[in-house]
Amino acid sequence: MGTGPIRTGVTAIFPRGTGDLAEVFAGWFSLNGNGEMTGTAWIDDYGRLLYPITITNTNSVGTVRDAVIEWGRTRVPGVFNCCLPAVAETWDGDLNDIYGFHVTKKHVFSALAAAKPGPVAEGNVGGGTGMQCLGFKGGIGTASRRLSARSGGFTVGVLVQCNFGLRRQLRIAGAPVGQEISEPKACYDTDAPLEDDQADKRCPRGVDREREHGSIIAIIATDAPLLPHQLRRVARRAALGIGRMGGVAGASSGDLFLAFSTARTKAADSLGVASVPMLQDERIDPIYEGTVQATEEAIINAMLAAKTMTGADYLRVPALPHDRLKAVLRKYNRLSK
Amino acid sequence: MGTGPIRTGVTAIFPRGTGDLAEVFAGWFSLNGNGEMTGTAWIDDYGRLLYPITITNTNSVGTVRDAVIEWGRTRVPGVFNCCLPAVAETWDGDLNDIYGFHVTKKHVFSALAAAKPGPVAEGNVGGGTGMQCLGFKGGIGTASRRLSARSGGFTVGVLVQCNFGLRRQLRIAGAPVGQEISEPKACYDTDAPLEDDQADKRCPRGVDREREHGSIIAIIATDAPLLPHQLRRVARRAALGIGRMGGVAGASSGDLFLAFSTARTKAADSLGVASVPMLQDERIDPIYEGTVQATEEAIINAMLAAKTMTGADYLRVPALPHDRLKAVLRKYNRLSK
Amino acid sequence: MGTGPIRTGVTAIFPRGTGDLAEVFAGWFSLNGNGEMTGTAWIDDYGRLLYPITITNTNSVGTVRDAVIEWGRTRVPGVFNCCLPAVAETWDGDLNDIYGFHVTKKHVFSALAAAKPGPVAEGNVGGGTGMQCLGFKGGIGTASRRLSARSGGFTVGVLVQCNFGLRRQLRIAGAPVGQEISEPKACYDTDAPLEDDQADKRCPRGVDREREHGSIIAIIATDAPLLPHQLRRVARRAALGIGRMGGVAGASSGDLFLAFSTARTKAADSLGVASVPMLQDERIDPIYEGTVQATEEAIINAMLAAKTMTGADYLRVPALPHDRLKAVLRKYNRLSK
Amino acid sequence: MGTGPIRTGVTAIFPRGTGDLAEVFAGWFSLNGNGEMTGTAWIDDYGRLLYPITITNTNSVGTVRDAVIEWGRTRVPGVFNCCLPAVAETWDGDLNDIYGFHVTKKHVFSALAAAKPGPVAEGNVGGGTGMQCLGFKGGIGTASRRLSARSGGFTVGVLVQCNFGLRRQLRIAGAPVGQEISEPKACYDTDAPLEDDQADKRCPRGVDREREHGSIIAIIATDAPLLPHQLRRVARRAALGIGRMGGVAGASSGDLFLAFSTARTKAADSLGVASVPMLQDERIDPIYEGTVQATEEAIINAMLAAKTMTGADYLRVPALPHDRLKAVLRKYNRLSK
Repeated sequence: MGTGPIRTGVTAIFPRGTGDLAEVFAGWFSLNGNGEMTGTAWIDDYGRLLYPITITNTNSVGTVRDAVIEWGRTRVPGVFNCCLPAVAETWDGDLNDIYGFHVTKKHVFSALAAAKPGPVAEGNVGGGTGMQCLGFKGGIGTASRRLSARSGGFTVGVLVQCNFGLRRQLRIAGAPVGQEISEPKACYDTDAPLEDDQADKRCPRGVDREREHGSIIAIIATDAPLLPHQLRRVARRAALGIGRMGGVAGASSGDLFLAFSTARTKAADSLGVASVPMLQDERIDPIYEGTVQATEEAIINAMLAAKTMTGADYLRVPALPHDRLKAVLRKYNRLSK
Repeated sequence: MGTGPIRTGVTAIFPRGTGDLAEVFAGWFSLNGNGEMTGTAWIDDYGRLLYPITITNTNSVGTVRDAVIEWGRTRVPGVFNCCLPAVAETWDGDLNDIYGFHVTKKHVFSALAAAKPGPVAEGNVGGGTGMQCLGFKGGIGTASRRLSARSGGFTVGVLVQCNFGLRRQLRIAGAPVGQEISEPKACYDTDAPLEDDQADKRCPRGVDREREHGSIIAIIATDAPLLPHQLRRVARRAALGIGRMGGVAGASSGDLFLAFSTARTKAADSLGVASVPMLQDERIDPIYEGTVQATEEAIINAMLAAKTMTGADYLRVPALPHDRLKAVLRKYNRLSK
Repeated sequence: MGTGPIRTGVTAIFPRGTGDLAEVFAGWFSLNGNGEMTGTAWIDDYGRLLYPITITNTNSVGTVRDAVIEWGRTRVPGVFNCCLPAVAETWDGDLNDIYGFHVTKKHVFSALAAAKPGPVAEGNVGGGTGMQCLGFKGGIGTASRRLSARSGGFTVGVLVQCNFGLRRQLRIAGAPVGQEISEPKACYDTDAPLEDDQADKRCPRGVDREREHGSIIAIIATDAPLLPHQLRRVARRAALGIGRMGGVAGASSGDLFLAFSTARTKAADSLGVASVPMLQDERIDPIYEGTVQATEEAIINAMLAAKTMTGADYLRVPALPHDRLKAVLRKYNRLSK
Repeated sequence: MGTGPIRTGVTAIFPRGTGDLAEVFAGWFSLNGNGEMTGTAWIDDYGRLLYPITITNTNSVGTVRDAVIEWGRTRVPGVFNCCLPAVAETWDGDLNDIYGFHVTKKHVFSALAAAKPGPVAEGNVGGGTGMQCLGFKGGIGTASRRLSARSGGFTVGVLVQCNFGLRRQLRIAGAPVGQEISEPKACYDTDAPLEDDQADKRCPRGVDREREHGSIIAIIATDAPLLPHQLRRVARRAALGIGRMGGVAGASSGDLFLAFSTARTKAADSLGVASVPMLQDERIDPIYEGTVQATEEAIINAMLAAKTMTGADYLRVPALPHDRLKAVLRKYNRLSK
């Protein structure tokens, strides 16, 4: 995860939970393509992911990508005739000095070294440091669903780097939270060197954003044995979770979703034929439903974990106030008491 | 619209509102591909729609498609070296004797002749006759949004043939309507020749469906001047409206969306260069948002207009009870008093 | 295969070589989308093919599609909650009275009943009856490649319904055959009721076509164990074989390719997990190369087998003259002696 | 273009021929996805290209990408809420010390500054420095076609970075050049520190490559007024040119093609509606044919311009010998006398 004075960073995800290279099947989907995810032509055709997945800010995708290749070389010294890295991004230019290009390959190596099993840090961390989500401070969020034994007992987990949407659009559990909590707005700190005609953007007044300029990246992991063409479909379901939150996938958003399966393929025989486990399509609905639900929850978790931040450019973006959220959920009978 | 004793039919949509052939730009999206929409390879590459769009049941797509071509020939006697018809479908085999192949080309010609401007019939009509939507009787539904003058004053309208989802998934205005209204279920009529071990499916008890086996078709029309690659993006937004309703796009669903623009191209010059109006991408967000909202509303309207039906096979599917819906919306503070 | 006085027909392909329904994995590709292949949204997402594949003329796709479903119902009486039929087409309106809609479901049932193992009839048969290919009479053609034991010993076979291209574009084995054999042209029979100003189109003079108005369908079969996303890639290779023949995939062409694998999946366990054989991507190049070569050869075979035909509209399309082809190949040192 | 002791570099292409940012419409196609082209999700959805296109080696894509953004910032200081850079690559690891990551942002700025109108340097230059193409030394190649006045007088030009294929596959003008010119092979220099069992790879003997491990990038430029969905189709035609050369698009290849149009859009009105010139689809065949031909010729030109090179790792890759090529073309009657 990115650290230090910079307002940005890198999030690294190892599909198999180790620090090493290990191939998995993958599929992806673009709900709106105003964003970058490298490696997608490869995933489209070959459905394979070798490198850890990384997420950073828009202007650092390249640095992170080449660094992931350099790192991979130290792990497995052969030449890989396959498998380009998947590096995704969202724009953090409101809170980060994004044209300062502060992410270096050292940050990437640190993020890769720091990745470990267990609970995932959420909120203002890693690539999620400078995010804004549905009008509040956003960031990294995660959630998962365990299927019933009857449905195979599989798990599906979702990690989002949440940076999309306008406050008025925010729905939580169906309640119109964004319309109910119109204050505080994002605003410029008292120290901000604003022009006179910008004075009304200074705190405690602030900015009513009218047009989205963010994105959401969702990474979906499952141990269900799914093939690349099935994982493409799973990736697509993240859109439905975003729909539940009120998102419309604005023109400035790069809403790109990547799903992978950790199920293991048996080694190939001498003719190069491997034996691959595949969940029948007729059994996949619980995975779909889990993906929709976990995407919805991961977005909420990103907002709940995020803290109010004042960025490189004096913009202060408020966190979603937990107490007021509870009050709104009570008003709409979505929280008892 | 199909009529008479059959429990199925054809819905016809003329992109320019007349009874004639008139080309428009179009784009489409498949949220889940367990369905048919003919003409999509053509729309993918050339983004043009010449024939009226039709929607019918799964087993009648072919009959309708060839009949549309035959009808077109009577309108413009030349050979068309372009433009394959778009015919979509949803499965109505629970309520319709779908393997009876009851739709004939006469029904298609009737539906094409009957199409007229003005309010669109909703509920159990045309291709929507035998639909089930989110656990209640479904059908055809429509809704539209008019953009503000500042956003160009454009209109976006959506027509759905709604046949997807499980009752427990149904959310309306964010309220968990499907979980609140668990009765009445779909059930078999007293006359139904059921086996003894099926007795508990007889009314007033009934069937709790555990797995989706339906779909939704959405047709999105706008007068905003959009090019084919922009219309593909608009079509994709229907998914977000379905997300709001609680849909997960199950494996058995053919969730296919088609968007077109009625804006007119100026005639080509002698070198074959036409002048095409194009809304800038930076201005498209209101169209996206209108599409999401109108899709959501069109689904609700399909359910509100639909009537309880007992099908060819003695299955009775209840309409969404309006009074109980209101009560649920009040409970969740989504309807005043 | 179509028979009788009509100048069109239906070609049926059973992926497993029997008269029954049996599922295989499949993938498809559209080189140019001015054509129809039904079932592609399903193949895109689920990569499965249940019904026999059929190919017919443009205006009969619908009739054939619904008839295939009706036929399937007689074979397996359950309701299929999956698997829409793949029906493809090319335009035969120059030689067939295509707006007469002469293909009926009886023709489809006959074609399905007549399909049998063994050598495939080529030339003016079935859906290929009224084809024109690279300026000569076209039709159905097939070819295959057997891989070396070291490459797994797999077979890849290609069937084309060849209806694309202009004569001047035709290359065979690299030789500019179309430019060398400019006569005879397609021409109108002495009986043709031509207008006076069309007199120069009458035989033995004839028509120099300047613009393509045809297509090519390629069906690629292999016993190599390939998954849907791999088969999509195999389907794409047909384009390279067309490139070798001089094709440019004109705007009026529906160049749609469908690949399937007959390898068998082991039955799923109680959790719905099947074991699927998969050829490693690193071993797939011989399949690719075999597909390119077999596509090239299948096109040539279609032309070699086709016979000169005079169509419903008095147009006579000449077959590629074998002796003159040999002379050209000798001239370009592609045939010894 | 990259220069100096390194065996790799960067090729920069300005769509409008200036050193500045200027938007054009674009479309792309992946014939085989074992390669990287950044910015494709954006091009897929929005069809716009703002930054110059760059091509480099596989491991330098990231460095080049971020440098292009940094460079763009110096040209237009605003924040771009659009338009991600398109950076493509091919693998030069046989001739370049690719894991040395020698391309730095200075090389990128130099390549961008050095770009100028006029004839394009071909062969071992820029990103093409370390290429191998169809078994000979490859590199950058270009070709173009001017359409007749009747076809609009448009120009279509193609630039390739050619690094694909095996020698035995090479066809030129239909002649089996690769099979005729089996010597000299790529071989290791006398200085190469080879293991004993590798001795037969030393010059003048050498390496018979059995498996492809390269790619081809094609950039297609036209002044014909084409929309994004039309340009996607144009990009696809590069595959047909590769087919003519004998290519099969092996599994290790990243065969990615990008087409753009320099036609100008009229400024948008106050509602954001621009007027866009569009060539009718019915007039596009000459553009398709020109693209196929120019791709074929650009590949040949890349080989003709390339010089024999000994790489960082002592591998010597021979250029296609011009005299022997002429002899082969004469043998197959493709060159007079």
